[in-house]
Amino acid sequence: MAGTDRRRKSEAADFCREDAPAIILVEPQLGENIGMVARAMLNCGLIDLRIVNPREGWDRDKAEKCSSGARLVLDRARFFTSTKEAVADLETIYATTARPRDMVKAMVTPRQAAKESVELATRELKTGILFGKEAKGLHNDDVAMCDAILHLPLNPAFASLNLAQAVLLIGYEWYTMNDDTEERYIPETRSKMARPATKEEVIGFYEHLERELDDSGFLRIEEKRPSMVRNIRNIFARVELTLQEVQTLRGIVAFLSNGRSGGPGKGK
Amino acid sequence: MAGTDRRRKSEAADFCREDAPAIILVEPQLGENIGMVARAMLNCGLIDLRIVNPREGWDRDKAEKCSSGARLVLDRARFFTSTKEAVADLETIYATTARPRDMVKAMVTPRQAAKESVELATRELKTGILFGKEAKGLHNDDVAMCDAILHLPLNPAFASLNLAQAVLLIGYEWYTMNDDTEERYIPETRSKMARPATKEEVIGFYEHLERELDDSGFLRIEEKRPSMVRNIRNIFARVELTLQEVQTLRGIVAFLSNGRSGGPGKGK
Repeated sequence: MAGTDRRRKSEAADFCREDAPAIILVEPQLGENIGMVARAMLNCGLIDLRIVNPREGWDRDKAEKCSSGARLVLDRARFFTSTKEAVADLETIYATTARPRDMVKAMVTPRQAAKESVELATRELKTGILFGKEAKGLHNDDVAMCDAILHLPLNPAFASLNLAQAVLLIGYEWYTMNDDTEERYIPETRSKMARPATKEEVIGFYEHLERELDDSGFLRIEEKRPSMVRNIRNIFARVELTLQEVQTLRGIVAFLSNGRSGGPGKGK
Repeated sequence: MAGTDRRRKSEAADFCREDAPAIILVEPQLGENIGMVARAMLNCGLIDLRIVNPREGWDRDKAEKCSSGARLVLDRARFFTSTKEAVADLETIYATTARPRDMVKAMVTPRQAAKESVELATRELKTGILFGKEAKGLHNDDVAMCDAILHLPLNPAFASLNLAQAVLLIGYEWYTMNDDTEERYIPETRSKMARPATKEEVIGFYEHLERELDDSGFLRIEEKRPSMVRNIRNIFARVELTLQEVQTLRGIVAFLSNGRSGGPGKGK
């Protein structure tokens, strides 16, 4: 549906930033690659696609199909007849290319380029990243215009990526530079029972379990009992149990004890 | 050529590590995707591919074609009939999946998972990363087996990646965690002239330029001369000139001065 479609697109655009690096494709050959680049860009919140002299007759329909719905990037793409024009308004540009043997030029990692892009953006300066023709790379003249060469750290004996993958890795570094996702966390769920259990609830479970273990004879060796209890408590202490999970565990204990000492729930 | 081919492959394998995370594809549907995953793995130095119940009749030839030469990963791939068997020897496993609504489960970024994998490897513990069926993702039962969910920070309204791209981003984080490429550096070139110029060579150029600027009248206003000279020196001081570049600049000055004051090289 057009309506749904429009809504989805505008949401994806909401996470894009005008001050993100421009992606500049110099002489791309295939509509498929342009489309997949658009997709990778939108994945990473990049919206400024610039295309210099694409191969005549590149297939716009194929580009759109391969963009997996990133049409808004293709719709906003701008076309240029020279790299010079494509980068005219940018302050810093990076070349993605193999290290040129006889140029003296700074090399940067994608993480460093992302850091610099973010820093430059705070001063309202904009960066761009140049990608050359599939398989052939950038012209040396275009590389010479660039401030630095962006080198992807990958298996040196197997480093070749397709255009969209290179855009994805570089865009990902930029996106994560701006992203504040915690490295490791346990998200809240909608269920009220999913709240972390209080210590009273957790200790209630421990005591329930230990009563049943006493009853069953598992803890019968007096002098070993304290350390066994501590070891068992430490297993569950590592888990950060929720209230739901405490109740599940109490149910397990009750049911397992059932055949031995009466109905479930007996060992309250 | 077979010989060349073999040499290239063994070189790519040299940068792979057995203690890197295993990549576990659960019920992959298309040979193309398996091939592209193998390529992304080799890009990132990952070599341990495990495949659980691929779709019957998946195309091994297509996989090889789409692997762009990463056959050694495909050749070493192991096949399993259950996820349980595929992960049996691993100590920590991560699920790549959308956040399940009603599970209480730690979420980690790919960078954090990479950090943990490297740390666990130092204790000879091995990690694995589970990927579900294209478009469908992992079964909840497989997710429940995992220690944490690996969540890729991307445009939340446009986060869908294909299998190989997800493997690439995760593998890239692992590879860079082990990689010591400097964030920014100027590599040495083979040319002897590309060595950084000494201060004597650089100052020789400054003085040459300033003599010609004096001769030409550019620095004629006495009270402004010192600050103009400093400003000009500061332009070039930011460049970290090589010997070659100093000589090029002296040539430029000589030739530009040529029409004015005699032959090139006059202003020695």
